[in-house]
Amino acid sequence: MSSIFGENIKFLVFGQSHSAGIGVVIDGLPAGETIDLERVRAFMRRRAPGHTAGSTPRKEADVPRVISGLAEGVTCGAPLCAVIENTDTRPGDYDKLRAVPRPGHADFSLHKKYAGFQDVRGGGHSSGRLTAPLCFAGAVCLQILKKKGVCVHADVVAIGGQSEGFDEVIAQARAEGDSVGGVIACTAEGLPAGLGAPMFGGVENRLAAALFGVPAVRGVEFGAGFAAAALRGSQNNDAYAIENDRVVAKTNHHGGVLGGITTGMPLVLRVAIKPTPSIGKAQQSVDLQTMQPTELLIGGRHDACIVPRAVPVVEAVTACVLLDLMQEK
Amino acid sequence: MSSIFGENIKFLVFGQSHSAGIGVVIDGLPAGETIDLERVRAFMRRRAPGHTAGSTPRKEADVPRVISGLAEGVTCGAPLCAVIENTDTRPGDYDKLRAVPRPGHADFSLHKKYAGFQDVRGGGHSSGRLTAPLCFAGAVCLQILKKKGVCVHADVVAIGGQSEGFDEVIAQARAEGDSVGGVIACTAEGLPAGLGAPMFGGVENRLAAALFGVPAVRGVEFGAGFAAAALRGSQNNDAYAIENDRVVAKTNHHGGVLGGITTGMPLVLRVAIKPTPSIGKAQQSVDLQTMQPTELLIGGRHDACIVPRAVPVVEAVTACVLLDLMQEK
Amino acid sequence: MSSIFGENIKFLVFGQSHSAGIGVVIDGLPAGETIDLERVRAFMRRRAPGHTAGSTPRKEADVPRVISGLAEGVTCGAPLCAVIENTDTRPGDYDKLRAVPRPGHADFSLHKKYAGFQDVRGGGHSSGRLTAPLCFAGAVCLQILKKKGVCVHADVVAIGGQSEGFDEVIAQARAEGDSVGGVIACTAEGLPAGLGAPMFGGVENRLAAALFGVPAVRGVEFGAGFAAAALRGSQNNDAYAIENDRVVAKTNHHGGVLGGITTGMPLVLRVAIKPTPSIGKAQQSVDLQTMQPTELLIGGRHDACIVPRAVPVVEAVTACVLLDLMQEK
Amino acid sequence: MSSIFGENIKFLVFGQSHSAGIGVVIDGLPAGETIDLERVRAFMRRRAPGHTAGSTPRKEADVPRVISGLAEGVTCGAPLCAVIENTDTRPGDYDKLRAVPRPGHADFSLHKKYAGFQDVRGGGHSSGRLTAPLCFAGAVCLQILKKKGVCVHADVVAIGGQSEGFDEVIAQARAEGDSVGGVIACTAEGLPAGLGAPMFGGVENRLAAALFGVPAVRGVEFGAGFAAAALRGSQNNDAYAIENDRVVAKTNHHGGVLGGITTGMPLVLRVAIKPTPSIGKAQQSVDLQTMQPTELLIGGRHDACIVPRAVPVVEAVTACVLLDLMQEK
Repeated sequence: MSSIFGENIKFLVFGQSHSAGIGVVIDGLPAGETIDLERVRAFMRRRAPGHTAGSTPRKEADVPRVISGLAEGVTCGAPLCAVIENTDTRPGDYDKLRAVPRPGHADFSLHKKYAGFQDVRGGGHSSGRLTAPLCFAGAVCLQILKKKGVCVHADVVAIGGQSEGFDEVIAQARAEGDSVGGVIACTAEGLPAGLGAPMFGGVENRLAAALFGVPAVRGVEFGAGFAAAALRGSQNNDAYAIENDRVVAKTNHHGGVLGGITTGMPLVLRVAIKPTPSIGKAQQSVDLQTMQPTELLIGGRHDACIVPRAVPVVEAVTACVLLDLMQEK
Repeated sequence: MSSIFGENIKFLVFGQSHSAGIGVVIDGLPAGETIDLERVRAFMRRRAPGHTAGSTPRKEADVPRVISGLAEGVTCGAPLCAVIENTDTRPGDYDKLRAVPRPGHADFSLHKKYAGFQDVRGGGHSSGRLTAPLCFAGAVCLQILKKKGVCVHADVVAIGGQSEGFDEVIAQARAEGDSVGGVIACTAEGLPAGLGAPMFGGVENRLAAALFGVPAVRGVEFGAGFAAAALRGSQNNDAYAIENDRVVAKTNHHGGVLGGITTGMPLVLRVAIKPTPSIGKAQQSVDLQTMQPTELLIGGRHDACIVPRAVPVVEAVTACVLLDLMQEK
Repeated sequence: MSSIFGENIKFLVFGQSHSAGIGVVIDGLPAGETIDLERVRAFMRRRAPGHTAGSTPRKEADVPRVISGLAEGVTCGAPLCAVIENTDTRPGDYDKLRAVPRPGHADFSLHKKYAGFQDVRGGGHSSGRLTAPLCFAGAVCLQILKKKGVCVHADVVAIGGQSEGFDEVIAQARAEGDSVGGVIACTAEGLPAGLGAPMFGGVENRLAAALFGVPAVRGVEFGAGFAAAALRGSQNNDAYAIENDRVVAKTNHHGGVLGGITTGMPLVLRVAIKPTPSIGKAQQSVDLQTMQPTELLIGGRHDACIVPRAVPVVEAVTACVLLDLMQEK
Repeated sequence: MSSIFGENIKFLVFGQSHSAGIGVVIDGLPAGETIDLERVRAFMRRRAPGHTAGSTPRKEADVPRVISGLAEGVTCGAPLCAVIENTDTRPGDYDKLRAVPRPGHADFSLHKKYAGFQDVRGGGHSSGRLTAPLCFAGAVCLQILKKKGVCVHADVVAIGGQSEGFDEVIAQARAEGDSVGGVIACTAEGLPAGLGAPMFGGVENRLAAALFGVPAVRGVEFGAGFAAAALRGSQNNDAYAIENDRVVAKTNHHGGVLGGITTGMPLVLRVAIKPTPSIGKAQQSVDLQTMQPTELLIGGRHDACIVPRAVPVVEAVTACVLLDLMQEK
């Protein structure tokens, strides 16, 4: 099962970059929640191309059509399905990809898995375009979470190794026909303490499993994360205190989760996004039919940096997992 | 479901630090595999206390008893269950833990989740002791993987922010009543290309979900990981070449997995282990019954650094997930 | 999770009787299978209203639109999504159903589960219309099974307690403003021996779990089924013999499955379908708002007998489960 | 996954008839529930051999040892594991079974699935002995259900086609070296309305999936079941009425569940148990090594009728599934 996640709520993402459409089915949403579709669309526009630095000139209206799951705008307990039509497709750009895998893309591994039957047009099901239905799902979950007092917010904290001047870093990479990656931090506030589970069903396990489903994510960490590995216990441990009759931690190296279970402090996670593998420079690859080396020059439309567009995607996936966790008794 | 992972093979870990025993059931192992239990025990000794720097003086023979799943030493298709008796338990050490949560431990979050009914003796089900049955499961899977030509190997690559002199770093922390964390790198060689799946069922998703089940893991990364976020696409992309009529990548920033699917290059991952939260120094906590601040001094037996003991655990969990992935058609 | 089944292949059905559309996503289909959509539509017409005795006059073209999962007519490994538009909807017929639950329907239990937020129009997500996407999924699976030498065939074996003269039984019930149920038998030939698993993941477990998802199914039995309970062991046991160097059973009381695992003999199952609860006669119900008894007269368009239309649905669900089972290594 | 069931609570059964032991792990039980182990053992004695007519003379103390999951007799949220030692094993009885499959048993299908590596001693993992840990699990769940006001009760309603004189029917079959099957009815009272889900995650789906895991079950039906197929809608529909300000159904042909969701009326199901395949009479089989026909005479210890011993097993499995369903939010 490649394209489904969630325990109490199932999120199943479908579509290929150049199929008739892409979309998502959400099964298990609580009934009785009013969904503001205009706000959903506004959220989705945050990841749409052209709204952030470094994005592809491909134009997609990306208007989701709700097929099921709402009755007069309110969740009715039935699976919520939304479809986004693919309109601006140019299959011709991608013809040679079947034979010559792009370095850093999944072309070669997909070819091995599916024996050449994968949809190679525009990256097929592995395209970054599939993050649009993820954002739809996340926007729905964010609205429900908000009514429960939970807010999720992500930000870019590094691009190309820099912690500021992001536009300049991206512009320079683009000018050189290259690309850059970055780091996104995400915080969720308002979560109750006691959410999650020990061992394999915990908050980190489930968030990490879903976040690695976002294309180009190469690392996920919680709280102090990899930096914690360089600390002493006396530094990394967060002292407890009483504030307004509630237990709080005075610092938050633990990122709001201990032993897989929330503490009530803000949940903090970070994801590492690799640089977009599609670059303007010539690259060395191989021809899978002739089994000879070949040089690859990628045409088509590409992002020099997808990190800004990935920000709402990280928020969306985080929201989906958190709402799923909150559905547990 | 807190204590189970796996898709085609299910691994269910049970036990508390001071219950009658701990153990694991493995459901879905291929039938017909001879398991060398002496080698399993040898593997398990690598994580046992007293065999590595910084470990607790608690003594446990940790001899697994196979209850089911083997017929004359060969897997028979039925669930394999192994139980390890808990023998050296000292419940008295932990009495006040119900009231005063240890900073950095899961005491407080468990208390909130289970309304005080969690087993607080020795960390209960969240104890590091539960990694013993994980090692049993991993040792079984490693033997089966080896016959398929897959080897998994992990190493400590950093302790307390240092990349060498680990024993000294640990000794100094212990001398100061403190603890240190570290980073473990794990490599799997011999995997076929085409293993895994796009989006949410991929190699990274499933490995990360399981690895965050190892106590104290705060981050998981693949290939270049967080470092990739600082690279250009032209640096991070791995060029393809032909070697002995096979497609290979000339470098391995991708860590053997692209788009959730293996490429046939070595799988490379790293996990961040936080410093052991149990330290000798006095710490600020709260009394959950009186809701007053209190100072906590932890007695009992503790590791100054669990990173060396976590090395076989990371190998074990990685092996479990990889064998599970290889069971897919 | 109400609307999903399958282990290696996930089938997620969405839609309500009067939402914009209904459909299905199939995740995990093997790649490289050519799907003949014309034959899919021909299969779906077998369940469409108006093609069998006793069916509703509601007209739906029920033309599935494939949104994703095929590339040039061939499965590409990505989730296959098909949407069927709902065109002939008449919401006005169903207005009072929110207050007055129809006996024998799920109105009251849905009202309790969803606190009144369920979509009551035409039965919502619990409508028999949702069997249309099930038939789409089954038709796809049947084509793939056929290439593997597996054929699935179902038939009506009883209507209203009679084993012949079905049209007359149905016509008489309709004339009296009443409805009748019946029994459908389904056989799958060509299955390899050794498919399935002991205990809870076996052929019967998984088929029964899915078949009870077909509206109006009240019983499922395999082989001699309930009749076996009245037999002696010496009668019910099927003797083995050798035929053409293969092991065969001389009789088939076991219905092709022993201990959850196929024997290579034809798989035989039967399902009991209750009479359609929507009848023309006045019925006693209650008003959930006033909590007073009330008489209910159901208008709208209804089947006097859905058994003939359920035949392809039983084939479809059986095919989905069998293909799922065959995806196991 | 052969040996696991449950959604919110996972039940994993392990062991073979002649392995060191058999047992169960229950993951996901609510914390804070006091379990009376003496009552658990009393429940388990109801299925033990020698307590009912027709049972095998094999003697097993069947005393479960709780390995984990309780702290001072109270569920602590950690997986509850119980092991029952196998003491009275006689492997010699079963030597020729590897070559000559017993008609009506799973010997042949297991042989095909596991390529001969299955544990053939005493039926291995497919033995009726595995219902002992199921009864342990069920007894635990029954105690928790009872505190929630839910009672589960099963009875034999037919043996060998007779609805009374069960002991005589069994005695006669035994005297003739034969065996008989029967039907068990199970009722659960006190369930709230609104439990379950539409389509594939409903009460019937989940109960049937688990009940077919009980050895020898060949059919499962709810409410009027197969008899409903012979009724008119006007007969089968249950009229609603108001009683003590609650909605009730005046009859219960629907067996307490409509559209996968409980109505608050008693849940009613029946299972068909086939006659024990192990009989004293000579039977025709084949030798899988020589591929020649052969006559089989089964020695060892066997039940002439397992139906009475299966009664607590049906209660147990029903209780496990119902408690699992009640854990949903």
